[in-house]
Amino acid sequence: MAAAAPPPPPTVAPVTLPESDPSGDTLFTRIRLATVDDVPHIHKLIHQKAVSERLTHLFEATPESLANTLFPQNPPPPFNSFTVFLLELSYTPFPPTPQDAHFTPILKSIHLDLPIEDPERESFRSRAIDVNILGSDKERPGEDTVDRSCITGCKDGVRESGMGGVGIVRECYRRKGLGKILLTAVVSQAAKMGYGRVEWVVLDGNVNAIKFYEQMGAQILPEWRICRLTGDALQAYAHINF
Amino acid sequence: MAAAAPPPPPTVAPVTLPESDPSGDTLFTRIRLATVDDVPHIHKLIHQKAVSERLTHLFEATPESLANTLFPQNPPPPFNSFTVFLLELSYTPFPPTPQDAHFTPILKSIHLDLPIEDPERESFRSRAIDVNILGSDKERPGEDTVDRSCITGCKDGVRESGMGGVGIVRECYRRKGLGKILLTAVVSQAAKMGYGRVEWVVLDGNVNAIKFYEQMGAQILPEWRICRLTGDALQAYAHINF
Repeated sequence: MAAAAPPPPPTVAPVTLPESDPSGDTLFTRIRLATVDDVPHIHKLIHQKAVSERLTHLFEATPESLANTLFPQNPPPPFNSFTVFLLELSYTPFPPTPQDAHFTPILKSIHLDLPIEDPERESFRSRAIDVNILGSDKERPGEDTVDRSCITGCKDGVRESGMGGVGIVRECYRRKGLGKILLTAVVSQAAKMGYGRVEWVVLDGNVNAIKFYEQMGAQILPEWRICRLTGDALQAYAHINF
Repeated sequence: MAAAAPPPPPTVAPVTLPESDPSGDTLFTRIRLATVDDVPHIHKLIHQKAVSERLTHLFEATPESLANTLFPQNPPPPFNSFTVFLLELSYTPFPPTPQDAHFTPILKSIHLDLPIEDPERESFRSRAIDVNILGSDKERPGEDTVDRSCITGCKDGVRESGMGGVGIVRECYRRKGLGKILLTAVVSQAAKMGYGRVEWVVLDGNVNAIKFYEQMGAQILPEWRICRLTGDALQAYAHINF
């Protein structure tokens, strides 16, 4: 709907890194806020998820429409609307990270027992960093296998959304604690901003995820059900006469 | 967090109406978008709900903080962030409603079998209209008895929130179809804007609401669970060391 948005000022200066050694046993991670420059990767990830869930027939976003949605003209400040957290990976330490007015990038490193084979390493390379794992509140082309599709916070008795959060960890990087790092970053940001509540959803059969969330301090609410209007049933309302 | 926001231009011109006759059997309704002028009523409604749910200990919003959250400086266009739909009531027809660039107010009338006794009629009077019933996505001070606490849409594979919707219908106005009018307005707006999905939540024991939602075309998803981080468990993340 909005015209193409101008890119906001980058939050992290592009830095050229030397080629790194994927056989190393330490993986360096950095979480930062996405910018419009990241849209091609975000788009690709959402599409991959749609493919994996056989829901490409519901996938209509283009990089351009996604840029307009995530980074509209006159964007509100971060955390007030869509806010995408990215987790970047590198086999070499990240260069010094410039301070950002809204979010201080989070640097961590994790130990790998085995090197990770990433068949798409090149196509997800950005800013001279080896690979990106993208965590985004904002994807949800399908539903069936998405564990964490939406994270919302509550402030002032007012439900906030747009507090981004874990949504997509590419297959080859799963079960390494990266989702926890991302989710912790989102929750921490919400807590720092005075939110009273952060919520997301999980499939009731995903016992590992439920256990993990409970260990993080979350309650799983048994009694609430999601109501969904979609497809033709929703489109019928476009022309309703009141 | 933001400084007090200047009021946006009113979407409906204030008009002085004659005192109306509450014994009439026709109730006129108008749905419009809320403005910052409506914040005192919205705040009062959220507080009432907190009282009814014995959750006032979680209620921290002031009219000022609520105004900053709902109507921040540099507000995004309606439907891109918090958007509150109001349903106003009158026993006399509404005056001609000026067109709004973003939303054409919806006018309806309903038949009443019995007059409604509203003990708070005066305190919810606004803009010379008899009474307000406020529908808002955005409240959620508590959880236990809220049927529809959040309505989100999905566009471009991107979960949108801020598409407001039914949240509060004051007790004396319930079971008259007003919630359906409000929810239909929200769903219709989402459909017109090309959203692919609209979602909200319901308690699994609320069979009447579930039946009503299903009649509207919604699916009730049995397998998803809400995960919630709140209170001390959430606050512990404010000072986490990564």
